[in-house]
Amino acid sequence: MIVLSTDFGLAGPYTGQVKVALHAEAPEVAVIDLFADLPAGDVKAAAYLLAAYDDRFPPGTVFLCVVDPGVGSARRAIAVQADGCWYVGPDNGLFEMVVRRARSAVEVFEISWRPERISASFHGRDLFAPVAARLARGETPAAAGLTALPEGAARMPAWPDALHEIVYVDAYGNAMTGISADAMAPGAGLLIGDRSVRRAVTFSSVSPGQVFCYENSNGLMEVAVNRGSACVELGLRVGSAVRPE
Amino acid sequence: MIVLSTDFGLAGPYTGQVKVALHAEAPEVAVIDLFADLPAGDVKAAAYLLAAYDDRFPPGTVFLCVVDPGVGSARRAIAVQADGCWYVGPDNGLFEMVVRRARSAVEVFEISWRPERISASFHGRDLFAPVAARLARGETPAAAGLTALPEGAARMPAWPDALHEIVYVDAYGNAMTGISADAMAPGAGLLIGDRSVRRAVTFSSVSPGQVFCYENSNGLMEVAVNRGSACVELGLRVGSAVRPE
Amino acid sequence: MIVLSTDFGLAGPYTGQVKVALHAEAPEVAVIDLFADLPAGDVKAAAYLLAAYDDRFPPGTVFLCVVDPGVGSARRAIAVQADGCWYVGPDNGLFEMVVRRARSAVEVFEISWRPERISASFHGRDLFAPVAARLARGETPAAAGLTALPEGAARMPAWPDALHEIVYVDAYGNAMTGISADAMAPGAGLLIGDRSVRRAVTFSSVSPGQVFCYENSNGLMEVAVNRGSACVELGLRVGSAVRPE
Repeated sequence: MIVLSTDFGLAGPYTGQVKVALHAEAPEVAVIDLFADLPAGDVKAAAYLLAAYDDRFPPGTVFLCVVDPGVGSARRAIAVQADGCWYVGPDNGLFEMVVRRARSAVEVFEISWRPERISASFHGRDLFAPVAARLARGETPAAAGLTALPEGAARMPAWPDALHEIVYVDAYGNAMTGISADAMAPGAGLLIGDRSVRRAVTFSSVSPGQVFCYENSNGLMEVAVNRGSACVELGLRVGSAVRPE
Repeated sequence: MIVLSTDFGLAGPYTGQVKVALHAEAPEVAVIDLFADLPAGDVKAAAYLLAAYDDRFPPGTVFLCVVDPGVGSARRAIAVQADGCWYVGPDNGLFEMVVRRARSAVEVFEISWRPERISASFHGRDLFAPVAARLARGETPAAAGLTALPEGAARMPAWPDALHEIVYVDAYGNAMTGISADAMAPGAGLLIGDRSVRRAVTFSSVSPGQVFCYENSNGLMEVAVNRGSACVELGLRVGSAVRPE
Repeated sequence: MIVLSTDFGLAGPYTGQVKVALHAEAPEVAVIDLFADLPAGDVKAAAYLLAAYDDRFPPGTVFLCVVDPGVGSARRAIAVQADGCWYVGPDNGLFEMVVRRARSAVEVFEISWRPERISASFHGRDLFAPVAARLARGETPAAAGLTALPEGAARMPAWPDALHEIVYVDAYGNAMTGISADAMAPGAGLLIGDRSVRRAVTFSSVSPGQVFCYENSNGLMEVAVNRGSACVELGLRVGSAVRPE
């Protein structure tokens, strides 16, 4: 299975073009869209989000991830093997939290293969997709055009374990934080500026219109309003500050 | 075939996560997105819409439908067999119009199976998807974790046969009503407040800019403007009142 | 492979309904969404866009394309064979630039087949999809319900080779023009009103916030801002005038 997480946006031809490139190399492999709306150009927020949303996938899954404001510059292209899955994308920190939270040894590779035709602006289609497809159909790293990097390469050691920011706002107006619920004190809520947001189990635990926070279905602390929009109510957007109480 | 109709919205990871859960149980079954933008949290509008949009599907189709503001509360999870197809989702009236319009006997089941891991907020992924996948690959109700409910369970007898409201606004600004065209007097138009909206066959039957109503391609009365937006022109949104002339 | 390019919009049931119709006739054929947001009702802009985005597809690909403001009128339905691929849709100029840029002989057919049930407003589902599916599974033109049209039919000879307009704005706010990069003088930029927009290789070649133009990954001249929105910065939308310097 190949899983797509990008900031390409929902509109436009880009995701379709990536799928055409994947189909050319691995027509039998299922391709599933996870995120097309990762925070645009915000590699750090995307990194914390991705690490929470790579759970529940079968071994061998290839995550093709693109938030790549440096495309066309000298940044490397990489593939990371962690916990039996592959992550393919730019070397800009996007996989930092995946690597940091891996339960077993991680291997990091540079994508040294280059296609005959490569655009300056669309490595998702031209470079990452063919490599992801080859890994998904079981090719070895060498056959897929990868070269091992030394341990510790492609890391962002200065990044914190929890990001005290909103990392994603969904269509309902719920605001996900970069804070894992399992790092919270039992029952503790969140602070947004001076406002204390109390913790609840889920939407139906609170009255309509009430602001609360809860452990979302992927383990992140999330700010929400029952039958309302936390985003509108509290003026939250990606990057807004939030911290454990 | 599994058909997805939800109010998850187009953005975000939710539809993709449901597809991963479906793929885990039924990798060979085609999955098609019908609606990702059912009226958010508006179970009644969604019920009238769904009953118009379940036509033209092959026998054995499984409709996985989620508009579920009560997720995490005590509401039941159900599966309904009607006219050779399955409908899987919450017991909140979402399938009332499907059941009422069924041409043959209907059977209603409670989903009594529970997964090992179940979140409080995402039963679409954790509960409905695995059951839908098992039904789609042909398992018996018992094997899929279903328990029969008595006749008349999970119904909304007080709901009218036609909903005199806008139930959906599409990307062009066309506004679908909860009124079937075959219940209209021949040639009759619609009334929106005091305004009479005349009936036409289709867009190219009227001048650019003209407001009209017509039988849409799924048999619902729909308010439209040729090369314009009925929604903008008439200030319509889901829930706006509209009635036969 | 069947490739969908329409102005149906991202929301709503329309694309899903087309896929159900395709699946009924050609369940084994891959279906890929390219554009769901072609400029709504703007056949001319869509024609220049499509001709740039039909590259990199395998022979035998069937492009099902719908921008069809005249649906329900007397406009013909056509299928065009060009460079080993099929294009199925309305006869309104949508395939003019595909035909004009074809590298080998082109054949144009009218779709003379009609289904038992055909709506007045949704030929994408009722007419184009079944024909596209039959062509994709390799049926002959006659078996697919096509009748050859004389050479020169279904053309728009008055249209220019380059459209000096914005033809698409993407989710980042980048604005594609109807001008192929290979028709530009070396290094020449674009003029938008009185403003000269200089040419660069790609985003990372210019400073953040800077307006530039470049050859996009499909060979069209495109106006962009590094880490910003050209659309917002320059007030561009589909139809805005732009010309080579």
